[in-house]
Amino acid sequence: MSAADLSRCSLNSATVKHASLTELVDAAAAAGLGAVGLWRHQVQEAGAEQAARAVAGAGLRVSSLCRGGFLTAADEAGIAAALEDNRRAIVEAATVGTRELIFVVGGLPAVSAPGQGPRPDAGPGDRDLVAARARVADRIADLVPFAAEHGVRIVLEALHPMFAADRAVISTLGQALDLAEPFPAETVGVVVDTYHVWWDPQLREQIARAGREGRLASYQICDWILPLAAEPLNSRGHVGDGYVDFAAISAWVSGAGYTGDVETEIFNEEIWADEPVATARTVGERYARYVRPYL
Amino acid sequence: MSAADLSRCSLNSATVKHASLTELVDAAAAAGLGAVGLWRHQVQEAGAEQAARAVAGAGLRVSSLCRGGFLTAADEAGIAAALEDNRRAIVEAATVGTRELIFVVGGLPAVSAPGQGPRPDAGPGDRDLVAARARVADRIADLVPFAAEHGVRIVLEALHPMFAADRAVISTLGQALDLAEPFPAETVGVVVDTYHVWWDPQLREQIARAGREGRLASYQICDWILPLAAEPLNSRGHVGDGYVDFAAISAWVSGAGYTGDVETEIFNEEIWADEPVATARTVGERYARYVRPYL
Repeated sequence: MSAADLSRCSLNSATVKHASLTELVDAAAAAGLGAVGLWRHQVQEAGAEQAARAVAGAGLRVSSLCRGGFLTAADEAGIAAALEDNRRAIVEAATVGTRELIFVVGGLPAVSAPGQGPRPDAGPGDRDLVAARARVADRIADLVPFAAEHGVRIVLEALHPMFAADRAVISTLGQALDLAEPFPAETVGVVVDTYHVWWDPQLREQIARAGREGRLASYQICDWILPLAAEPLNSRGHVGDGYVDFAAISAWVSGAGYTGDVETEIFNEEIWADEPVATARTVGERYARYVRPYL
Repeated sequence: MSAADLSRCSLNSATVKHASLTELVDAAAAAGLGAVGLWRHQVQEAGAEQAARAVAGAGLRVSSLCRGGFLTAADEAGIAAALEDNRRAIVEAATVGTRELIFVVGGLPAVSAPGQGPRPDAGPGDRDLVAARARVADRIADLVPFAAEHGVRIVLEALHPMFAADRAVISTLGQALDLAEPFPAETVGVVVDTYHVWWDPQLREQIARAGREGRLASYQICDWILPLAAEPLNSRGHVGDGYVDFAAISAWVSGAGYTGDVETEIFNEEIWADEPVATARTVGERYARYVRPYL
């Protein structure tokens, strides 16, 4: 395996959750990868400019920043807080050196905290998924001018429907594209994350549409494994360990004209217990075996 | 609450898993419900004709029979076995007195048993979801003439995408309708099960389409609750205990022209531990409060 083969392979920092920014960058560089995906808390800890220097100094790119979003609040204070936080995220993305700011848009506001069930005082309006989705559209419209000014793209992420109640009311790639449609492609894009969309009967056509519309901003990979972990959020597996047809999906993404980085993002307690360098090497190996040949 | 209000309320036997057929029928009748949904193992134990008499004798209807399906086998023996078993299911449905035979179509054949992960020897073809879905279409075509002869409808059930790997490769109502499209509406229909489809951004339009095409064969209800149970299959809640917007979905189903029974089907260890009569009364109360006003 030559190092060049891994030039589009990116390690998302969530995959090595317990690594510092320096350890992440060192692990990705040691494994011969081309990029890293960052999360805001790390960037904030290091300082965005310092984080940018650390990544560039190791010869790597920042493939994306996670994450903006959580846009479903219905009350004025909640809306103002969401807009303020997302403006900060946009500035951080620009400063750390990536155009692609991944958005997880939030669940039904009936939820006070993920996994807790509806609030005892939840009213009928709190279960109104159609209205929550409409608020997401409104908040994207609010943020688009600021993102455009900063040269940052709002990258809408469809989350698996099992997270529709508490994490993200965007549940399919087609829905993400519908929400993006009113806005310029360079300012609102979408991400294909295999974990969230692998099951979608419309996946092939919606990936093609994303390419046609110039909105395919990121390709994130990890596998669907069973049984689900006790915390389903952390139930993802290394590419090749589960049910996802990476040959088909990677070919669709490539066929749609995507030439960007392929970011491995895995939430999994067992993988988090591994050494970051070992994880980075596995990420590179699995990418080379299951994904690269189909790009 | 007058008894008439519950005339369209049906208790699926899976909701009172440990009840005998007699206990099920007695509980539904005592709670003033209009119908019961049955599962094949119960019908087979009692004998289909005897089961039909037991239900009719209590003044109830059979709203549906669960379940045919498991159509994704790729090998000749598996295909033959699936067709044979489904022909038996069709005969049982006709004999027990319902037109509506619910189909759970099966997951990727890479799975030897649900929850076990892919077989160690799974080949790339075993992850080919597109091919598995195409085989479902072929098997439906095989079964349609036999179902038509017996006056039974193959009712395709979209399962929540979290079951796409191991239970059902039909993941949305729209996909179920696409699969049904080549066949007469009186022989291939669809079910709207709130647990499986509540999150779908296309739900409103696909329910309307199902009505327009004459394929809306069953409306099954239960709630999406969090956190998920350790066995996600058994993670369903009583109507009103979770996140599903029953007012909206029931109005859409009614607006699509559905006038049939509304069947409560809940898999939940705690609810299974309750007395069948108590569960039947709760089912009636929740139906009267959260669903009936919107039909």
